[in-house]
Amino acid sequence: MNGLIMDYPLTTTTILNYANSAFPDKKLISYLPDGSRHEYSYAQLYKRCCQLANGLRNKLGIEKGDMVGTFAWNHYQHVELYYGIPGIGAVCHTINIRLSAQQIEFIINHSEDKVIFVDATLVPLLEKIAPKLETVEKYVIINATKNFSTSLGNVLHYEDLIGEQLDTIDWPEINENDASSMCYTSGTTGMPKGVLYSHRSTYLHAMTILSPNAGNYNFSDKILLIVPQFHVMAWGFPYMCLLTGSDMVMPSLHLQPKAIINILESEQINKANGVPSIWRGVYEEMKKNPPKTKLALEEYLVGGSALSASLIENFEKDFGIKGVQAWGMTETSPLGTASRLQKKHEKLTRKEQLKIRAKQGFEFPGIEMRIIDENGNIAPRDGETMGELQVKGAWVIKSYFKTNSRDKFTDDGWFKTGDVSTIDVDGYMQITDRTKDLIKSGGEWISSVALESALMSHSKISEAAVIAIPDEKWSERPLATLVLTNESSTVSSEELKEYLSKDFAKYQIPDQYITIKQIPKTSVGKFDKKEIRRLYAEGKL
Amino acid sequence: MNGLIMDYPLTTTTILNYANSAFPDKKLISYLPDGSRHEYSYAQLYKRCCQLANGLRNKLGIEKGDMVGTFAWNHYQHVELYYGIPGIGAVCHTINIRLSAQQIEFIINHSEDKVIFVDATLVPLLEKIAPKLETVEKYVIINATKNFSTSLGNVLHYEDLIGEQLDTIDWPEINENDASSMCYTSGTTGMPKGVLYSHRSTYLHAMTILSPNAGNYNFSDKILLIVPQFHVMAWGFPYMCLLTGSDMVMPSLHLQPKAIINILESEQINKANGVPSIWRGVYEEMKKNPPKTKLALEEYLVGGSALSASLIENFEKDFGIKGVQAWGMTETSPLGTASRLQKKHEKLTRKEQLKIRAKQGFEFPGIEMRIIDENGNIAPRDGETMGELQVKGAWVIKSYFKTNSRDKFTDDGWFKTGDVSTIDVDGYMQITDRTKDLIKSGGEWISSVALESALMSHSKISEAAVIAIPDEKWSERPLATLVLTNESSTVSSEELKEYLSKDFAKYQIPDQYITIKQIPKTSVGKFDKKEIRRLYAEGKL
Repeated sequence: MNGLIMDYPLTTTTILNYANSAFPDKKLISYLPDGSRHEYSYAQLYKRCCQLANGLRNKLGIEKGDMVGTFAWNHYQHVELYYGIPGIGAVCHTINIRLSAQQIEFIINHSEDKVIFVDATLVPLLEKIAPKLETVEKYVIINATKNFSTSLGNVLHYEDLIGEQLDTIDWPEINENDASSMCYTSGTTGMPKGVLYSHRSTYLHAMTILSPNAGNYNFSDKILLIVPQFHVMAWGFPYMCLLTGSDMVMPSLHLQPKAIINILESEQINKANGVPSIWRGVYEEMKKNPPKTKLALEEYLVGGSALSASLIENFEKDFGIKGVQAWGMTETSPLGTASRLQKKHEKLTRKEQLKIRAKQGFEFPGIEMRIIDENGNIAPRDGETMGELQVKGAWVIKSYFKTNSRDKFTDDGWFKTGDVSTIDVDGYMQITDRTKDLIKSGGEWISSVALESALMSHSKISEAAVIAIPDEKWSERPLATLVLTNESSTVSSEELKEYLSKDFAKYQIPDQYITIKQIPKTSVGKFDKKEIRRLYAEGKL
Repeated sequence: MNGLIMDYPLTTTTILNYANSAFPDKKLISYLPDGSRHEYSYAQLYKRCCQLANGLRNKLGIEKGDMVGTFAWNHYQHVELYYGIPGIGAVCHTINIRLSAQQIEFIINHSEDKVIFVDATLVPLLEKIAPKLETVEKYVIINATKNFSTSLGNVLHYEDLIGEQLDTIDWPEINENDASSMCYTSGTTGMPKGVLYSHRSTYLHAMTILSPNAGNYNFSDKILLIVPQFHVMAWGFPYMCLLTGSDMVMPSLHLQPKAIINILESEQINKANGVPSIWRGVYEEMKKNPPKTKLALEEYLVGGSALSASLIENFEKDFGIKGVQAWGMTETSPLGTASRLQKKHEKLTRKEQLKIRAKQGFEFPGIEMRIIDENGNIAPRDGETMGELQVKGAWVIKSYFKTNSRDKFTDDGWFKTGDVSTIDVDGYMQITDRTKDLIKSGGEWISSVALESALMSHSKISEAAVIAIPDEKWSERPLATLVLTNESSTVSSEELKEYLSKDFAKYQIPDQYITIKQIPKTSVGKFDKKEIRRLYAEGKL
């Protein structure tokens, strides 16, 4: 027997309509690539999304199910694309501008993008590969300056596309299970793989991450979206902000620590998101040049990699700003967990609390997680037993785009994350490694992430990445690469071994420590351990 | 093209599984009818729900789609029923114990309940009508004392039903659009009508009301559920608390102000819900007998009727406890709006802020609202134009149970609430009346709710209900019935007219003021204006 409740599809248009009705005067503020500041209201956003949707149909012939690519920074036009494209049933495919030319070429051909919306500053990246793109019929240029010119053929300017279009539309009915957007993984192993989100998954993810146990956002917040819109839909924030009525601030390419601090300061931002390397940079810059007045920033949400306990601690101690660790992947929309302290943790020492806050946290409703140990059994939630983290839920993929491979899925329907983790008795998950980065020494597992986190809490060390190197006796041994906080200082192996011996067993402590200028990073800002291993193998470290 | 996301149905079992995994040690505390305190964890709740589900199948033969009635106070067994019954695909039909015997008889026969779970203390109410119940095969008694006896035939005790059952179960797959629960309206006009909720609507409602713009609940909260489980699923709180990991405290029949204050005090409750008359009673009791230590209570959520600005103000001024106005109906699951101040309201005066907080507030995502004026047009959002409030959304009914009547639905798919309202430019909706209670005097509409609210802010007046009485010259005139704060005091008509003249036009001010012992109330605690009009017509006021 069916319930007698209205059919009310959960779509991106549901979100857009809601903001237009409930929060017409909330603001979308953009710092554009040319440095200018742009501001309009959600009511205006709504109108321009209608114009864009009409333009997509009337001038570009985009139809339901078509793929439309974006190659752009965070700004209002990109937000318009997040709603305008799925609003007419097409798929908003955000292309990661930081991938290699070869990967970008692969992605665009594989997804069969019909049109690509591209920021003028990013056009040079596309010009190189344009001749090899098989399906792209048109490029729409965003934020072009007056003397803009390009070798791309078939070019249209964004404002010319939407300018003459009606600012109302009769949005088509959309099945909530239809695809709304797509994002490719960064492909650290092999070619990137496409993850196709649905309207429903987008809505449910956004509705869940705003909740108090997760991001905790409301209509009085002003949020800086540092996570790029080309990284897993900016973690769903452009959808979430319209559900909460939060003001949304977009930095486009102004992502250097100084630029971020300027925006935080002048806009009186109180919440933000970003990967740890961004926040480490902001913290170090603030230490060097403390802001004249206290920032309004209360809290930053971190994902992508682990936020070290020392950064959490220092940011809070020095500036009263709280870091909240979250976890997710392209395949999980992305957010699945966050680590906030509960009432029962109030009685713990500061150090014990930091240990919990540095974990990835517990699952949101709509997400399930489990750890599978070496023998294929579900591991106990004891905070010790390591195994592969597997998840399922309302915004987790069931297969990759255009592939039948089931490698990443279990027979009983769980997604294999490739993360090695523990879950403690209170349900807090902690990633100890990527399966492929785990170090096995003398038959015992060593967590490279735990070592990195400990090394990065050392005052002389800014960044640390630990890899496994072959060893005749132990099969593998850990090796640490380090970036020093102060380039002219030094730190001895003995000093570091002594430092680590507080928290680690002897066999877990690296024998070798190599100081380098910077740690190689992937396109999404994570340590590129494949590259470090290659450098080591080639004797170039 | 479908998104490639897992099929993950939003069901009550999804919620139960989540709490068991994420919050196994959170507490469900019950003050049972006999006065004893009972406590267990969500892990134990989970196990007992499994036992109940097994018992329903094995001992009572309940199958998918069967109707199972509950006739009970708020306590852990009733929460178990909220999950155990829908968990096996049956429908949890909560029967309002405060309706008349005739209405209860009608409801049970109309819904075709197969089994009824009944609190021992409420058995006498059912004994009277049992011979007329056509479909009930069995009564399961909850919280029976040792010497319990009844004339009901075919009786089983709750613990005997679940006692020997397994505490694990392979929950059946359920379509999220299947019915999970049912509630009848209170039927102030005609017989009660059945509202059949789905698993999906239950999940989405619960997930939305916990958000910061709405109820704002998290895993550190301890919430007292004063709203009875037989009133619109206790506003969804028994589902919501398992999503947030909040501790849930159930008062059963201990609903007198003193009893509530005792629980607030001894349990260190920090959030609660309830209708305004409950909070008025609690406030007045606290004024008479101030608690020795400051209560932990931070906030109470109010719905069902309008919370007066004066009660909001006094509760906050005297005890530092914040009232949050919400709005909903049985037909809307129930919550659709809440009234919280935004950042831009900070610069308003205290009085202006209170005026906004006394409104019903703006819609949650998942809900749409509009006002239709006298001419059938959508009214502007100007805070002045009155008309009928219409809503649609993901937890709004599309038809009543077993009836084809479309009276309450528009051709374009909106539900007609029967409330007369305004919406202001910021989106805050305010109910000015029920359509049937509106007063039309000399061609002008007068809001009885606005008059009541103003009268109740007068220090000498505890409660006020305003009705329309026939008038030769003006067609209708308002008449006010009053309950005085201090029974031995008096208040003159002149004094009240003078008092109201600050905020109302002369024609809007009632000519007559009648002091009465108490205002007749409906089964859900609202002013029973039908009854007041009857008393007036019969000269009995």
